[in-house]
Amino acid sequence: MSRLAVAGVVAVGEELLAGEHPDLDSPLIARALLPHGRQLAAVHVVPDDEQAIADAVTELATRVGLIFVTGGLGPTLDDVTRHGVARAAGVELRHSDEAWRGVQAWYARSGRDIPESNRRQALIPLGASVLHNRVGTAPGFRCRIGDAELFALPGPPRELEEMLDHEVDPWLRQHPLEGEHLAIHHFYLAGLSESVFAEQAGDWMERGSNPLIGCTVKSGVLHARLLAHAETPERAQALVDGRSRAFRERFKEHIFSEEDADPAHALGRVLLEKNLSVTCAESCTGGMVAAALTRVAGISAVFPGAEVTYSNQAKSRLLGVAPELLERHGAVSAPVAEAMARGAAQRYGARLALSVTGIAGPGGGSSEKPVGLVWFGVCLDGEVRTLERRWPPAGRERVRAWATTQALVLLLEAARRA
Amino acid sequence: MSRLAVAGVVAVGEELLAGEHPDLDSPLIARALLPHGRQLAAVHVVPDDEQAIADAVTELATRVGLIFVTGGLGPTLDDVTRHGVARAAGVELRHSDEAWRGVQAWYARSGRDIPESNRRQALIPLGASVLHNRVGTAPGFRCRIGDAELFALPGPPRELEEMLDHEVDPWLRQHPLEGEHLAIHHFYLAGLSESVFAEQAGDWMERGSNPLIGCTVKSGVLHARLLAHAETPERAQALVDGRSRAFRERFKEHIFSEEDADPAHALGRVLLEKNLSVTCAESCTGGMVAAALTRVAGISAVFPGAEVTYSNQAKSRLLGVAPELLERHGAVSAPVAEAMARGAAQRYGARLALSVTGIAGPGGGSSEKPVGLVWFGVCLDGEVRTLERRWPPAGRERVRAWATTQALVLLLEAARRA
Repeated sequence: MSRLAVAGVVAVGEELLAGEHPDLDSPLIARALLPHGRQLAAVHVVPDDEQAIADAVTELATRVGLIFVTGGLGPTLDDVTRHGVARAAGVELRHSDEAWRGVQAWYARSGRDIPESNRRQALIPLGASVLHNRVGTAPGFRCRIGDAELFALPGPPRELEEMLDHEVDPWLRQHPLEGEHLAIHHFYLAGLSESVFAEQAGDWMERGSNPLIGCTVKSGVLHARLLAHAETPERAQALVDGRSRAFRERFKEHIFSEEDADPAHALGRVLLEKNLSVTCAESCTGGMVAAALTRVAGISAVFPGAEVTYSNQAKSRLLGVAPELLERHGAVSAPVAEAMARGAAQRYGARLALSVTGIAGPGGGSSEKPVGLVWFGVCLDGEVRTLERRWPPAGRERVRAWATTQALVLLLEAARRA
Repeated sequence: MSRLAVAGVVAVGEELLAGEHPDLDSPLIARALLPHGRQLAAVHVVPDDEQAIADAVTELATRVGLIFVTGGLGPTLDDVTRHGVARAAGVELRHSDEAWRGVQAWYARSGRDIPESNRRQALIPLGASVLHNRVGTAPGFRCRIGDAELFALPGPPRELEEMLDHEVDPWLRQHPLEGEHLAIHHFYLAGLSESVFAEQAGDWMERGSNPLIGCTVKSGVLHARLLAHAETPERAQALVDGRSRAFRERFKEHIFSEEDADPAHALGRVLLEKNLSVTCAESCTGGMVAAALTRVAGISAVFPGAEVTYSNQAKSRLLGVAPELLERHGAVSAPVAEAMARGAAQRYGARLALSVTGIAGPGGGSSEKPVGLVWFGVCLDGEVRTLERRWPPAGRERVRAWATTQALVLLLEAARRA
């Protein structure tokens, strides 16, 4: 690829080098570049140190066309990204009224006074343009370093994502690469592992394949990305469309959405369209399914509430699960999952109700009912289906996350047939 | 810090630069180094390219004492870490019988035949020692690059962790640093922003301060890290202890734990110690508080369940909130928060109950009750306290995450005084 088509990241932060969390920003930047035919060629993680930042920026400017610096734009003394970039650019910092108004507006919206230290956030290198941050205090900026274009963006992934969408993406659209066009399509799947997926996808995933399929898995959701490149936009799109049709055929049982990475949003969309009331009764997931459902803005129109029935007593008293059922079959069983789903539907007067009861671990497992065993019940208009899943004992939070995704996918299937 | 005390990572992998997943290896390495008084100074993420690997290794060898190369040790043609390191060391690759026996043993244990391509995995640079991999096929190796010691380790985090424990840690113990020792202490705070914290911490955060305080914020939890260095371990510890005492005094209203980054775990610990029963009634957080509580293994001993009462009708019918209260004050108000907390405590027969009702947005706000307004109620043994918080309208999920953290901290305070 040409030098202009490749980009580099300088991720700034002592906490990254102290091992407190991974660098989550570079993957976001890589994925934002991809539809524009640009790729990351290097990432440098550096401490909050002016010279280290300047050195990394200077090095990248010799070999990439786009540089992203993330983090270190906060108000405290250890936030020195502005200074490091200005040093690499060989210019002074100046106070930007535009940046300062953005910081002030943020504080005004939140009804708080601005600490004096925040004035630092309005400093940008001479000649740089301000990039607006709609979801945090730290403004970003864009400037030239030699022949390269540099974007300085805030470190928190949520703020970074918002600025990639609203500040970087429009710039990239205005500066297309010549003779290289990409087309992309996304599929979101549930209920199959990465290795089973890779086996079934076969040579579609081989390096050099065009379109190329890449996949990532998170909390039980498999995200497959079809990416084609060609000399014209139309040709790239035709390549992706053809492979997408074949993909849909091959994976139809597992695809839950081609728009929403989050099954809760796919579900919310259907529920709201059909005005279908929903509730749930959770044991091992302890509120995670309800928490996921309520990520959807406006869901209150169809979601009156839910029960977290953790103890057996709560299952009996609040959902009407017969104590004999619990005694005979145990709380993690098909009959109890069924009774919980029915109880929740009745209690909330909802057409659709989901129940989940399982053994998340680390304790509580047995040879017959091991850690990772989870039962689900789905009640739609009084008719209940149950499903058993057995996941590997990969840790309490993973089992709970898998069960939550499965619950949302089951609700989605039921909502679609309602 | 001296050059010997600092380390660098070269993380190898096209998938890291394609944004498929973050570099999870560097944080593991950073945390493995810390107890030995060593710190990461730089991370370079590079593609599966022999020259890029050699360049990054050569650059690091000029400024750090320890180099870790992760990934690219597999059997396929794009695994070129061995070649890149050999080029940086200026030596040839050789076949290692010891490494080959390790690969063979792995296949023997898994009952499969060895593909011919795996012979590549037995190649190591001339003069290097083999590092055994007990949980995967890829052996690692250790060699010198100039004055630096280099460890080449497999990329999958599970394999890396195992080799850090069994191959790297013993080496670090045998090679302690002279005259440079670190001590560290953590504080976890809630209810103050990063900039207010920085103002109150003042020169404790200034570069060159010893101990130095660094801070990061996630979901409303502020993590402050005190790090001291000195010529003896005792002196480093004394420095950290002294500053920690002053820190505790200055921030006592905000520190919720010195052990648990997760307020749910801090809370779970106290609840279980005191055998204090707990429940909650959630509106805007929609199950997130219950989901957080149930992250704690064994919490079923004190947590029977909880209510997600999203609609007004659910608040009245299930928690006994008087419809007049809802009509007069609105669902987001002190009287309703109080009634919800009382109702939840009674319904579940719990000594401690929390309620949360607020406007997460994006819709539903008004000038009097803007998006970001959240009321909390805490009922302990029948006595209720309420609290109002106003957060900036930073997006539905952030307001919900902040409210969840606040709820857990309120429960923790109440549980401590119970």
